[in-house]
Amino acid sequence: MKHDQHKILDCTIRDGGLVNNWDFSVEFVQDMYRGLNAAGVEYMEIGYKNSAKLLKSDNAGPWRFLNEDFLREVIPTKNDTKLSALVDIGRVDENDILPREQSQLDLIRVASYIKDVDKGLQLVQKFHDMGYETTLNIMALSHVMENELNEAFELINRSPVDVVYVVDSYGSMNHKDIDYMVNKFQRLLPEKKLGLHMHNNMQLAFSNTVIGAEKGVEFLDTSVFGMGRAAGNCTTELLVSYLKNPRYDVRPVLDLIERHMVAMREKVEWGYIIPYMVAGTLNEHPRVAMAVRNTADKDKYVEFYDKLTTPETIANN
Amino acid sequence: MKHDQHKILDCTIRDGGLVNNWDFSVEFVQDMYRGLNAAGVEYMEIGYKNSAKLLKSDNAGPWRFLNEDFLREVIPTKNDTKLSALVDIGRVDENDILPREQSQLDLIRVASYIKDVDKGLQLVQKFHDMGYETTLNIMALSHVMENELNEAFELINRSPVDVVYVVDSYGSMNHKDIDYMVNKFQRLLPEKKLGLHMHNNMQLAFSNTVIGAEKGVEFLDTSVFGMGRAAGNCTTELLVSYLKNPRYDVRPVLDLIERHMVAMREKVEWGYIIPYMVAGTLNEHPRVAMAVRNTADKDKYVEFYDKLTTPETIANN
Repeated sequence: MKHDQHKILDCTIRDGGLVNNWDFSVEFVQDMYRGLNAAGVEYMEIGYKNSAKLLKSDNAGPWRFLNEDFLREVIPTKNDTKLSALVDIGRVDENDILPREQSQLDLIRVASYIKDVDKGLQLVQKFHDMGYETTLNIMALSHVMENELNEAFELINRSPVDVVYVVDSYGSMNHKDIDYMVNKFQRLLPEKKLGLHMHNNMQLAFSNTVIGAEKGVEFLDTSVFGMGRAAGNCTTELLVSYLKNPRYDVRPVLDLIERHMVAMREKVEWGYIIPYMVAGTLNEHPRVAMAVRNTADKDKYVEFYDKLTTPETIANN
Repeated sequence: MKHDQHKILDCTIRDGGLVNNWDFSVEFVQDMYRGLNAAGVEYMEIGYKNSAKLLKSDNAGPWRFLNEDFLREVIPTKNDTKLSALVDIGRVDENDILPREQSQLDLIRVASYIKDVDKGLQLVQKFHDMGYETTLNIMALSHVMENELNEAFELINRSPVDVVYVVDSYGSMNHKDIDYMVNKFQRLLPEKKLGLHMHNNMQLAFSNTVIGAEKGVEFLDTSVFGMGRAAGNCTTELLVSYLKNPRYDVRPVLDLIERHMVAMREKVEWGYIIPYMVAGTLNEHPRVAMAVRNTADKDKYVEFYDKLTTPETIANN
């Protein structure tokens, strides 16, 4: 494994926002930028660049609908760490996007299900033409059939996208799945860089990420203290500690955890929580588990397990 | 990976007792036995068989100094799940041990540092002669030099011990270390079964365990909800879900977590806690982290990190 072949992309604000409805203060986000920069993290995903016009806002914080004027106030001076935003197909207004030279953003990532890869790549093409680095993040790969994937690869190979991500949306992949997926992506997308975005339902997010990194995957998603939807992500502090690159320093990440994340974890929940673990082992979307965690039955694990494993439930899923 | 080549050894009561000073009620332990038996778990480690005469008791619960009369009251009728106890060198009184046919225990495990393997194997020989299954659990392997290990292997090969464990006492091993260790143990101890006892400081306990299992390691230590010293262990619920053996059923384990472990975790702590993570990444014994967690400075992560990484501290360690 070469010292400098990896890029860490910290998505605490974007993915963690799914947990607290993007209720992060400006000071917190500024502090996160300073900390990640000091830690040597290459990219910070500072939110979604979706359009409030196309989506009910539900009083979400500003990191859900990033605005360039606002971003310039938050991070007036950029350091080494680049800024990234994620967009969802059908939720982004392309007229919202400035050309890169006028933007605080360096990278725009497009999240796509396999059936929408054509639409995703259309967006990628536009962002690419505007000067951005681009990624295509293929979600829910554990539910994709090989023939669909092969078709998508043909489109991807003809697009200018820089990085293609394996997204383990359900937190159901293990090291054998990573081995298989990365081999396949490397073989069929020989010109593209690859990325990994793992979820921690089975306590495998960090392990899967380093196993992929050692196979040559370049872009590695993390979040500080693992903050992210449901079971959360590969933690920034573990990956920064693990990768043998002198640019990385875990100390500023520990500082962020100490000053912010422990208190935040007391207010909102993510991580190894049994309904998320059950959903992960069953290769199911975490939405049913997230729903039950908002009810008085949140710790009725056996009932939840029975619900997910009775044939009627599966048939209606 | 064959269906039936693995044995799960749940050590919740023994290793978890290090967290709560073995303060488990008889009803809880009985319920644990029923649940593990229903889950198909092959062994339950029900405590330490050390001698209260040789060790300050500190008001520890009865699972620290197992007594056969007491054990017979707790588990009058055994089912499929066998019972195990751990002993420490210098803390066990051999006269306390009944011949196996008079005992509730099936397996006695001897924990040993590399320098004491000779003493450990002397105990193994005695327990073996009394009819027990035996294991030798070599602790702190991440701090052992190859020449010491090679010497120990010669002694082990001449002993009747059934299983030899790789114990990741510091939670500092990753998949490459497991690969290396298991290959070495398999090559140099060709007649012995192997075991793994992992700690979860870096969220790698489950991953390391399954990677070892796939390489042919037979005995796999777990604990329910990961309850164990410091960062805790590979969780029983994840391993039972993962191994493709129809004898295993995760449902009774979820039931144990729901009825007992969530409340217990609110009273005492274990798991992914930053000082344990830091100690793991630095390959240090968790005792310094455990000490700091009992002080008002328990969440001063940067201070803790600085303490462990300044040269003076290391020199005095």
